[in-house]
Amino acid sequence: MINKLCIVGLGLIGGSVGLAARKKHLARAVVGLVRRRESIAEARRRGVADRATMDAEEAVGGSEMVIIATPLGVMERIATTIRPFLSEGCIVTDVGSSKRCVVGPMEKIFHPRAHFVGVHPIAGSEQSGMRAAREDLFEGTPCILTPTRKTDRNALKRVRDLWKNLGSSVSLMSPDDHDRIVAAISHLPHLLAVALVNCLARMPGDVRKILSCAGTGFKDSTRIAASPAGMWVDICLANRDEILRALKTHQSELASVVKALKRGDAARLKDILIRARKLRKRMM
Amino acid sequence: MINKLCIVGLGLIGGSVGLAARKKHLARAVVGLVRRRESIAEARRRGVADRATMDAEEAVGGSEMVIIATPLGVMERIATTIRPFLSEGCIVTDVGSSKRCVVGPMEKIFHPRAHFVGVHPIAGSEQSGMRAAREDLFEGTPCILTPTRKTDRNALKRVRDLWKNLGSSVSLMSPDDHDRIVAAISHLPHLLAVALVNCLARMPGDVRKILSCAGTGFKDSTRIAASPAGMWVDICLANRDEILRALKTHQSELASVVKALKRGDAARLKDILIRARKLRKRMM
Repeated sequence: MINKLCIVGLGLIGGSVGLAARKKHLARAVVGLVRRRESIAEARRRGVADRATMDAEEAVGGSEMVIIATPLGVMERIATTIRPFLSEGCIVTDVGSSKRCVVGPMEKIFHPRAHFVGVHPIAGSEQSGMRAAREDLFEGTPCILTPTRKTDRNALKRVRDLWKNLGSSVSLMSPDDHDRIVAAISHLPHLLAVALVNCLARMPGDVRKILSCAGTGFKDSTRIAASPAGMWVDICLANRDEILRALKTHQSELASVVKALKRGDAARLKDILIRARKLRKRMM
Repeated sequence: MINKLCIVGLGLIGGSVGLAARKKHLARAVVGLVRRRESIAEARRRGVADRATMDAEEAVGGSEMVIIATPLGVMERIATTIRPFLSEGCIVTDVGSSKRCVVGPMEKIFHPRAHFVGVHPIAGSEQSGMRAAREDLFEGTPCILTPTRKTDRNALKRVRDLWKNLGSSVSLMSPDDHDRIVAAISHLPHLLAVALVNCLARMPGDVRKILSCAGTGFKDSTRIAASPAGMWVDICLANRDEILRALKTHQSELASVVKALKRGDAARLKDILIRARKLRKRMM
C-alpha cells in the first residue's frame, strides 16, 4: 500500500492509473497535479483522484510515489518544478513512450533526493484525455520497466508491484532495448498507418467513396492514426534514431515482397506470407 | 426470393452467404458445390447450405443464381467446369478481391448463356474456412459491385438486392476503380503488415520477449498478417500493378514523414499527423 500517490497529469494514462489505484486500494491517498482549473472539478467528478490541485508543493509534498504522466515534451520542465517539494527517498516514475531520452535526464534531476524508475505501460488507445480514462485500461497489457545500474532496488520493486497490481504484465529491459523494440512494435506501425491514411487523400476520385470502401482490415490497421498528433510528434522525435533504423529494416522486408511480386514469384511470396502468419499467430 | 441459389465453395465467405441466405429466407434452396467429401456432412451440420454436393451438374443445374466463392486462382477452371450445366439466363457472380482480372474472363466464359456480375464483399477476417463462417459476417460491411457495359441490368439488380439483403452497404464502380481503391485500402495494408511482423524476427534478442511487448496497437495493425497465405498470394499477384502503384504513393507519403523526422521538424510532422488523424476520424 502506498501512503500518498501523486499523479502528475490526469489524462488517459494518469487518469486510468488513478481510477484503478483508488478502486483497488493501492494507495491511501491519490492526489493529482493538474494544469487547468477545470480539471480539478473534473477529476473529482470522474473519480480519477481523491483530490486534484494546481499547486505542485501540495500535490507532491509528502508523497511516497510520484508518477509523471505528462507528454514527453514537458517532462523535464515538470521534473525541475516538482523536485524541491519531493520528500527524501521518494520514488518518482513516469509513463513515457521513449526511455533513453527520459531515464538519463530524470536520474540526474532527481538524484540523490528521490529514486527514479522508468516505466512504459503499453496501453492506451487512439483516444486521449481524462474522459477516456478507464480503470481496466492496464488489465492484461504489457508494461516495460527500464532500470539502470543507478536504479534503487527497493524503488524498482515498489514500482513493479504497482504495475502488477494495476493488471499489467511487467517485463524489465534496458532503456536502449526498450527504445529499439518499441520503435518496431509501436512507433513504426504508427507512422506507416499515418502514411496509409494520407495516401487515400492523394487518390483520384471522391475521398468519401474511397473511405466507404474500407473494411475492418483497413480500419484496424489504421486506428492508431487517429491518435493525438502532438503527443506522437514528441514520441517520434524522442525516438527518432531507432525509428529510422526500424524503418530501414521494414523497407528491406518490403523490398523482398516487392521483388517477389514483380517477378510473379508465387512460391517466394507464399514463403514470406507464411512466415508472417506463423509469427503473428503466436500473439493470439 | 431466389429459386435455387448455388454457392461454389463453402469457405468463410461462401459459407457465410449460405448461413445468412438460409436464415433470412433469401432463397428457396441453397446448394453448395464442394471439393472434398468431408465438406458435404460439415455443410449440413453447420447449416451453411440445405445440401452440398461434389457434382457440378447437380449443384449448378436449375440454379437461378450461382456465386463462385473460391480463391481467385481457381476461378477460371471452375467457371469452365460449371458452364455446360448452367440454365439459360442464369446469373453468375463471384466474391473475388481483385476484379479486372476476373470480370473480363468471366464475361467471356459465360456469354451468352449466363449473365456475369462482379462482386467484392469487403468482409472476412484473418480466419478462413467453413468453421469461421458467420451469418452476420456482412452486416454493415462495404460490398463493391463492378458492372461493365456488358452487364445485364436485371442481373445487376438481382445481385445488388442479394447483397443489400445480406446486410452490406453496396456501391458500384468500374473494375479498374475497384482494383485501384482496394489496392490502397486492403492489399497494400496487408503487405505492410506482413513486413511489419517479419521485421520482428530480424531483431536481435528473444523474439518471444519482443512479441510480449506488443500492445493492442501492434496487434490491430498486424491482425491481417495472420490471414491464409495462399489466398493472399493469389490476390496480390492478381492485382500486382495497382499494388505496386499504391506502394509508390505510400513510399512517397512516408518519405515526407522521414524527412520531417530527420530534420526534427516538429511543425511539419504535426501537420502530417493531423491530416491523417482528421481523415481517419471520418471513418469512425
